[in-house]
Amino acid sequence: MNRALNIAYFVDPSLDRDRNKLVETLKRLHPSDIAETIEKCDFHPSLLVEILVQTGSEKAYDAFSQLSIETQQACLSCADAQTMLPFVENMEPDDRVDLLKSVDEDIAESILPLIAQAERNAIRRLWQYEEGTAGAVMTTEYAMLSQSISVAGALEKLRLQAPNKETIYYIYVTDDQRHLLGILSLRDLIMSKPQVSLESIMQTRVISVSHDQEVEQVAAVISKYDLLAVPVVDKENRLLGIITVDDVIDIIEAESTQDFQRMSAVMPFEENYFKRSLPRLFWSRFLWLAVLLFTSLLSTSIMEMNAAVLHQMVALAFFIPLVTGTCGNAGTQSATMIVRAMALDEVRLSDFGHVFRRELVMGLALGFVLGLMTYFRVFLQDNNMLLGGIVSAALLATLLMANLTGALMPLILKRLRLDPALTAGPFIATVIDAAGITIYFQLAIWGLKFFG
Amino acid sequence: MNRALNIAYFVDPSLDRDRNKLVETLKRLHPSDIAETIEKCDFHPSLLVEILVQTGSEKAYDAFSQLSIETQQACLSCADAQTMLPFVENMEPDDRVDLLKSVDEDIAESILPLIAQAERNAIRRLWQYEEGTAGAVMTTEYAMLSQSISVAGALEKLRLQAPNKETIYYIYVTDDQRHLLGILSLRDLIMSKPQVSLESIMQTRVISVSHDQEVEQVAAVISKYDLLAVPVVDKENRLLGIITVDDVIDIIEAESTQDFQRMSAVMPFEENYFKRSLPRLFWSRFLWLAVLLFTSLLSTSIMEMNAAVLHQMVALAFFIPLVTGTCGNAGTQSATMIVRAMALDEVRLSDFGHVFRRELVMGLALGFVLGLMTYFRVFLQDNNMLLGGIVSAALLATLLMANLTGALMPLILKRLRLDPALTAGPFIATVIDAAGITIYFQLAIWGLKFFG
Repeated sequence: MNRALNIAYFVDPSLDRDRNKLVETLKRLHPSDIAETIEKCDFHPSLLVEILVQTGSEKAYDAFSQLSIETQQACLSCADAQTMLPFVENMEPDDRVDLLKSVDEDIAESILPLIAQAERNAIRRLWQYEEGTAGAVMTTEYAMLSQSISVAGALEKLRLQAPNKETIYYIYVTDDQRHLLGILSLRDLIMSKPQVSLESIMQTRVISVSHDQEVEQVAAVISKYDLLAVPVVDKENRLLGIITVDDVIDIIEAESTQDFQRMSAVMPFEENYFKRSLPRLFWSRFLWLAVLLFTSLLSTSIMEMNAAVLHQMVALAFFIPLVTGTCGNAGTQSATMIVRAMALDEVRLSDFGHVFRRELVMGLALGFVLGLMTYFRVFLQDNNMLLGGIVSAALLATLLMANLTGALMPLILKRLRLDPALTAGPFIATVIDAAGITIYFQLAIWGLKFFG
Repeated sequence: MNRALNIAYFVDPSLDRDRNKLVETLKRLHPSDIAETIEKCDFHPSLLVEILVQTGSEKAYDAFSQLSIETQQACLSCADAQTMLPFVENMEPDDRVDLLKSVDEDIAESILPLIAQAERNAIRRLWQYEEGTAGAVMTTEYAMLSQSISVAGALEKLRLQAPNKETIYYIYVTDDQRHLLGILSLRDLIMSKPQVSLESIMQTRVISVSHDQEVEQVAAVISKYDLLAVPVVDKENRLLGIITVDDVIDIIEAESTQDFQRMSAVMPFEENYFKRSLPRLFWSRFLWLAVLLFTSLLSTSIMEMNAAVLHQMVALAFFIPLVTGTCGNAGTQSATMIVRAMALDEVRLSDFGHVFRRELVMGLALGFVLGLMTYFRVFLQDNNMLLGGIVSAALLATLLMANLTGALMPLILKRLRLDPALTAGPFIATVIDAAGITIYFQLAIWGLKFFG
């Protein structure tokens, strides 16, 4: 199924002959494949625009709208406004606003006056919504009809409106103040008698989202009810726009990527891996690693404070990676499970007590069995009952603590309106390390005092 | 937007009065919400079936199809076949096959004979596809027409077929051997003159998937081309079924959940967090933790072998968590980035060399800067140049190794047809720990020999 082309790599687009060949090939491709192909070629943006213009009309416009926002910015910066106008006009309203928001003000202002008045008003309206809310990702191109018209009249109107609508599979029924009264699907329309009014066949219990809801909640609604689109309304239930299922797929994928990045202590970034420049990638990794390095110096300091105990029993050092590693793993397990369960709305804030009881039992069970295994390893190999007791008791206590921290911190962070995914990351693992080492040496001091 | 009900918690459904109240409430809900509500109530399955039967007809059937497969199994096991028949018949063909495959053979065989012959044949066809392939998740309920009929004729046929079709938004045009000739959308149909033939308006370059392709690839196709559904064909391009976008959302979410679980060393499981029983949850966590514990004993053994060096310089032990922790974090960063980039098709097997060069530079840069920071910390606080040199050189070497391992292992695993997400997990981190400690002590032995 993968039709991304490699041929483009072998042509030199500065040669007219080769470029014509490339354009001919592009003309035969799906817009998504044109976008993928020229994105991979790493052309200079001005050359890229020339090639798109040559490829021509609708297909090239659609391809442009599917390029990454960085490539779109580069094109806008180097081509003149008149050339770029049809490309920008053809974009979906929400993507267009994202692009115009992200380029230099003077570039945006050279293009804006060229856009038709009605479109400009739409841009201004979309501009105000905060990033990450339903308002910022909705499109304003949808099919809207009044309740009094008949099915036949509705189909007639749709035929006139359709070319400009992102989807006509749902039809939104509103009054003249745009209050959302009902919804019907194109399927309902096809199945109904031509003369009945929309009012009599529309569904009045409409599933909608508010413009200030987070996009993740919108994605959850579409996913739960298996919708193709969901209407976005304001406080007075006036229709502002719709969010379609293809945007929701992008939202879900971007969300997962961010969670993966947070969990692995990479500052979230949106570009393609190869598109991210090395210096910028360095910073998004270095800052977290440095923070973690300083946090892990906590462990170093705790060991330095306990140097006397270590001198007394050097073998204690041998089992530190085992205790901290195992407990870090257990904490990561419970944190990841709860973070994911929260993302899928399986676990909510009100479940705090329930999660606490489950993970208390789980931590005790895991700590007990793993502690026992460790005891036998230490006892059998080093023949040292005291060391075995210290290591396995430390493992049990630290694992219990790590398991509860991992499970409950995401809920606490959510309560504090922070991102729960932060917990599953190495930061908590590093803190658990330090706490584990403290517990370990405290137990060692007691052990040596009473049984040494 | 969340309409999940809490009221059901306060009713005792064994009391007729309370149950009637619950049923009345359920009747007013969306099927997805009915499913969510009764799933949360933890009713005995036989009571659950009774409530669904009382709620009645289409809505209850739809609600049943949205219950988790575990709950569906429980219902099937305790209610008689005749009662369950309409529920099972109403399910989407692919889900129905999944359910019948998962219950005891005698339960499946008590229901199968009751199902109509045509449906039974569909079940038998779907039964043969391997799990995780397009064939196993496709539905066989789609709108199929021949190329010679007119737009008006097509709309007429759709009106007759529609009630049984999962989606009529795409219409598939085939010849009488079911060879896929073209596709058109319901929108195209609405926009065209009634008398033209489908042949003249259909798109003949159809984006399709093969029945044996992995579901993740199908999800990528739907996501890339922004489709509402994609046709599934066999080797001879005969239409077998379609996969719709709502199934793709479920696939994407399940995939991410699995990746999260692998990355955190939890054996993948599909149930809701609270639905997974504690003993089963224990096993999916314990087995990995035990493997990791034994792997981390590698670190212990390496330190035991180097006990003499540790006795000579106990301070060496203080910086082990710092070196292994920082390098583990760097390895996790690069592994996660590459795993995610591979999942989004940004990085492919052929990019091995490119990734190697990038991560070599990145590892050197990170190792150098973080090593320098560590050197000053050790030198300033412990005033020990030798120790500082050993720790920072070990940090540089281990970080470089960890960074390259993290970045390249996913590519190598993919080549070996294993799951790349395994790399980002704690297993690699634990192996990196052991390798890091080996490097650390080797450098310490050389350092003490030449400068000690």
